[in-house]
Amino acid sequence: MDYKSLKSKSPESVRLAIRDGLYASHTAGLGKGVLQANIVIMPAADALDFMRFCQRNPKPCPLIAVSDTGNPEMFTAGLDIDIRTDVPAYFIYRDGVMVEEMGDISSLWNDDMVAFALGCSFTFEHALLAAGIDVWHITNDTTVPMFKTNIETVPAGRFSGALVVSMRMIPEERVEEAKAITSHFPLAHGAPIYAGDPAGIGIRDISKPDWGDAAPVLEGCVPVFWACGVTPQAAIQNAKLPICITHKPGHMLVTDIPDNVEVPIIKLPNSN
Amino acid sequence: MDYKSLKSKSPESVRLAIRDGLYASHTAGLGKGVLQANIVIMPAADALDFMRFCQRNPKPCPLIAVSDTGNPEMFTAGLDIDIRTDVPAYFIYRDGVMVEEMGDISSLWNDDMVAFALGCSFTFEHALLAAGIDVWHITNDTTVPMFKTNIETVPAGRFSGALVVSMRMIPEERVEEAKAITSHFPLAHGAPIYAGDPAGIGIRDISKPDWGDAAPVLEGCVPVFWACGVTPQAAIQNAKLPICITHKPGHMLVTDIPDNVEVPIIKLPNSN
Repeated sequence: MDYKSLKSKSPESVRLAIRDGLYASHTAGLGKGVLQANIVIMPAADALDFMRFCQRNPKPCPLIAVSDTGNPEMFTAGLDIDIRTDVPAYFIYRDGVMVEEMGDISSLWNDDMVAFALGCSFTFEHALLAAGIDVWHITNDTTVPMFKTNIETVPAGRFSGALVVSMRMIPEERVEEAKAITSHFPLAHGAPIYAGDPAGIGIRDISKPDWGDAAPVLEGCVPVFWACGVTPQAAIQNAKLPICITHKPGHMLVTDIPDNVEVPIIKLPNSN
Repeated sequence: MDYKSLKSKSPESVRLAIRDGLYASHTAGLGKGVLQANIVIMPAADALDFMRFCQRNPKPCPLIAVSDTGNPEMFTAGLDIDIRTDVPAYFIYRDGVMVEEMGDISSLWNDDMVAFALGCSFTFEHALLAAGIDVWHITNDTTVPMFKTNIETVPAGRFSGALVVSMRMIPEERVEEAKAITSHFPLAHGAPIYAGDPAGIGIRDISKPDWGDAAPVLEGCVPVFWACGVTPQAAIQNAKLPICITHKPGHMLVTDIPDNVEVPIIKLPNSN
């Protein structure tokens, strides 16, 4: 199934196409109006510490769902989700090193695994674009530039490391608006953590991102930095778990959770 | 130390007075501008499930801090917090039954314990009062009326049970305002989950709360219901853990976390 025909489909249909092996590419722009999620899967022994790491670092690690131990159905993130098959591509880490890419992890899942879903910035980028704020890396079809900062995350068990941020150039007069818009998506990293001189958060050369592609310093624009979902990926590599599985960057889980909700719940009772 | 002299003190001074046994009463109105927290302490074996329960039910259980296993310093909730001594009064549950009240749990704490802090409604009540919205139970010095609803929480492991709500009568023309005000405190239950006919969420008799004191149905007012911190207490009793320790209702942990923050972090880097 091609990307274009999936764009108009429901989140559930997107997941089914992925599960059936009909689509294995990136999910940007799919499942409009719902949260997409970074995925981290690990044995239960370290799951409490990883959950603490997310709780203590909610800007880079906004937790939107956690599976029961051994149950691949992430029932709080959406209808009939099977986390072994519903992500377009997975990265397999052993002792902190990425050793393999897979399209289906059924052979690796076992009764001791816990899956975590964390919010991602695809959500708020839609909102910036909708407000007429250009997002250079999208317009130019590159990957958002990401940087290691001099801000340390709050550690938990084996999980620690530097806060990683993603950078978007925002016109000076619209920085406050960009902050306000993204603050409405607390489950997708929320408001930026910093705006202005990159040196202020330990970034030496804005033209040399640690991940992703460089983006130009635009006249009249301010570099604005959001906490980034690469932070937990780096923490996982630091932790050197015997096995850990993540989504392949850009290849996210499409959930059924509306993207602008206050809390990551599929449905609350009608409040009117 | 009396309540009045504590009212002007810093959160840290309040905790020290409590630790030193100089104050053992309720904390309403203390530590202005910071979050107060419900406390739940349990052995590590069930901690991952309880944390999942909180993640899946964030309206009644807004998680603001989790200790390391065996470490009584809740360092992410404030400076020099010792969870064994800094709460005015504790309830001890064995097999789901409250068996004892204590002022200090040092003799019960061990290397296997995990402490959880959850936001509480004291925070948003301040904000309602500040906006000139009368809160009947405060004005009349009674306990907020609380009700079991017909809404089930999303279970996790041994933890399950009905959603419990607290009720405040709000003038009809100010209901939307009350919703908006409290939505700014996501770590203190946030916006209400329901407003209007109590039967809509399974409450048969508004004059007979399941916990707290009855409050009158006021002319021109609508009953508005917020998710309540008694929900996890009921879930804990249902779980029948061999041991579980909570704060005594109304006798909360006073944290250093500002009450209107987006995420439960003591301090973020300056974003300007």
